[in-house]
Amino acid sequence: MSDSAPIIIPKGFRAAAARSGVKPSGSLDLALLVADGPRAAAGTFTTNRVCAAPVRWSRRHVPSDDVRAVVVNSGNANAATGTQGEESVRRTTELCARLVGCEPRQVLVASTGVIGHQLPMERIEAGLKSAFADLSADAESFHAASRAILTTDTRPKIVSLSHGEGERAFSLLGFAKGAAMIGPRMATMLAFLLTDAPIRANELQPILSEAVEESFNCVSVEGHTSTNDTVFLLGGGAPSRSSLNGDDLKAFAGMVRSACQTLGREMAADGEGATHLITIDVEGCSDREEARSLARAVADSPLVKTAIHGADPNWGRIVSAAGYAGVPFEESQLSLWINGVAVYARGTPTQFDAAALSADLKAHRDVNLRLRFERGDSSIRFWTCDLTAEYIRLNADYTT
Amino acid sequence: MSDSAPIIIPKGFRAAAARSGVKPSGSLDLALLVADGPRAAAGTFTTNRVCAAPVRWSRRHVPSDDVRAVVVNSGNANAATGTQGEESVRRTTELCARLVGCEPRQVLVASTGVIGHQLPMERIEAGLKSAFADLSADAESFHAASRAILTTDTRPKIVSLSHGEGERAFSLLGFAKGAAMIGPRMATMLAFLLTDAPIRANELQPILSEAVEESFNCVSVEGHTSTNDTVFLLGGGAPSRSSLNGDDLKAFAGMVRSACQTLGREMAADGEGATHLITIDVEGCSDREEARSLARAVADSPLVKTAIHGADPNWGRIVSAAGYAGVPFEESQLSLWINGVAVYARGTPTQFDAAALSADLKAHRDVNLRLRFERGDSSIRFWTCDLTAEYIRLNADYTT
Repeated sequence: MSDSAPIIIPKGFRAAAARSGVKPSGSLDLALLVADGPRAAAGTFTTNRVCAAPVRWSRRHVPSDDVRAVVVNSGNANAATGTQGEESVRRTTELCARLVGCEPRQVLVASTGVIGHQLPMERIEAGLKSAFADLSADAESFHAASRAILTTDTRPKIVSLSHGEGERAFSLLGFAKGAAMIGPRMATMLAFLLTDAPIRANELQPILSEAVEESFNCVSVEGHTSTNDTVFLLGGGAPSRSSLNGDDLKAFAGMVRSACQTLGREMAADGEGATHLITIDVEGCSDREEARSLARAVADSPLVKTAIHGADPNWGRIVSAAGYAGVPFEESQLSLWINGVAVYARGTPTQFDAAALSADLKAHRDVNLRLRFERGDSSIRFWTCDLTAEYIRLNADYTT
Repeated sequence: MSDSAPIIIPKGFRAAAARSGVKPSGSLDLALLVADGPRAAAGTFTTNRVCAAPVRWSRRHVPSDDVRAVVVNSGNANAATGTQGEESVRRTTELCARLVGCEPRQVLVASTGVIGHQLPMERIEAGLKSAFADLSADAESFHAASRAILTTDTRPKIVSLSHGEGERAFSLLGFAKGAAMIGPRMATMLAFLLTDAPIRANELQPILSEAVEESFNCVSVEGHTSTNDTVFLLGGGAPSRSSLNGDDLKAFAGMVRSACQTLGREMAADGEGATHLITIDVEGCSDREEARSLARAVADSPLVKTAIHGADPNWGRIVSAAGYAGVPFEESQLSLWINGVAVYARGTPTQFDAAALSADLKAHRDVNLRLRFERGDSSIRFWTCDLTAEYIRLNADYTT
């Protein structure tokens, strides 16, 4: 969705973005979200053992029914920063709480950027004050916030959905970043979802966790799980207002899943240096985790990713990647289609027009790989991107 | 070791190489090794579920005390080729047995190259006959065989060791290929080791298996485990001659380990497009498998590999890769040195001269990463290489 696409702002939220000077480019690098009262909040976080100070803080404070604000900075991950990193989070949440008029525990935080550098707190504090002064419920403020969380992303990722009419109407707004250090082992990357649907944290958390399993946890750029992955979902409505039930709750859960999948697919499509979005459908597995292991092995193979980049239907790399996923299948149980063309059928190569398939891969940015096993009824859809010389260029010189 | 370096040929072996025409370049692509009598043979193979027809054949025939010959072809992996691939192996071993004067079960086979294409058997058969006619115990024949097994390798990998004097003297000759699709989940790649030490298969196999654990299974180029990985170790001596014992057996096992480590390190150094050989020392772990998981996560991270390529001491990528290895360590238990410079000490960043370290990385092809944990006494040494635009170029257009 482009900056000019219309978005619906969930009732009761304001946003702002600031240039704190953490990014050397001088771009927007701090986003602030504030609710007009206590809100339900759910979150999912990286499973990396080396996790950022903001992740440790936020993980302690969700799920919760009285979150008031979220502070996000980009350009510095505040990860692997020891006790000084924790102190930076404390100062950030205290300042935000003072500005908003709440307790520090009601403030969630997230960071993204280079690992191992201390946050320049004077800049963060000045940026936070400036953002607070600019808070607004205008669409432009939310668009600015969605840009302020980006690092090497080439474009903002934002999604807006709504449901129902009149009194029972509600909307969901989400935005995310993610272009590298994207590997699917819980939530990967930063994503923020806001809704004005009246719902409590104990309902919000399972809805978010399930949606993340079927979206962000099915995305990989290069398989490197970040230290800072965070997804927040903030609910709407005053505590007195009754919660969703029945059809509305189901519709809401579907909206969250749909929003997460849209953002996750956008992340893969905007993977660093990517020229192809690769959608991997793995079918006929014993269970979903088995399907995920197979999809991830294919998605993370540099040989598969470079073959797609070269528009090369070198399918042996795909079946051999599946072969080391740790799933005890037999070759005779495996069939493979590339963009709908059968290239391998139950363990035997097919005759296919390699030149035509290569031309098809060259002509289209979207690639579909379908792997069918004969082990059961579970399936998964997984998203990744190709591996290009531009990815190497971007990553061979990131800090220096 | 260059082609001109002196090598010692273990007694009783002859070798030859041929241009069968499987490689479009017309380079050497078939190697033949023949022993003058039945020999003990040990082998280790890929753990990939999609494994090549020659792997399935050879796995059934080692360990053995009466192997006579090994046929290796490059340019075509004979993997994912269904029953026709099995038939090609049968024809190859039958022809070789007829030429040598033995049974097909005494012939081992290995293949490397593109996956999913049927072997052109007329070419293979003509090449095999031509190689048989050229068999010789000259050093030049073994050098030619070491070149005939290469694919995208930039140089042959050969190692020659000897032990003792007079009657009890023995030697070990090894050669290997491997430049991509190198991921450490058993033996990875092709390697062939010959010795004239008198030793039986039941002693040879555990010596080889242990050596492979500490050498080839500690090497990765991009983590993609091949379908064709094979290591053979052929023993020496007539069955009547007494086997090694005591100090000689220990010395022999040490030679095998040393030879495998030399070849494994050479493989990483000659990884496709590589400009740096990265040696990863992981220390202070609860057990060796834990150390291997941590080393592998670091070795396989494209973000770590591109940082080294860019001479960028972006150590956050290294500690964060360790963080998702599945080992439940605490950040405060982790310290990291790059080329001997401490950059992270027990969970806290150190002050170090980043410009000097970057200059050091730029100036030297060899890079050392040392990760120390505080969980136990187990350690591992692991080898990998950096990830470059040349790797992308080589792999974006391999079959077409």
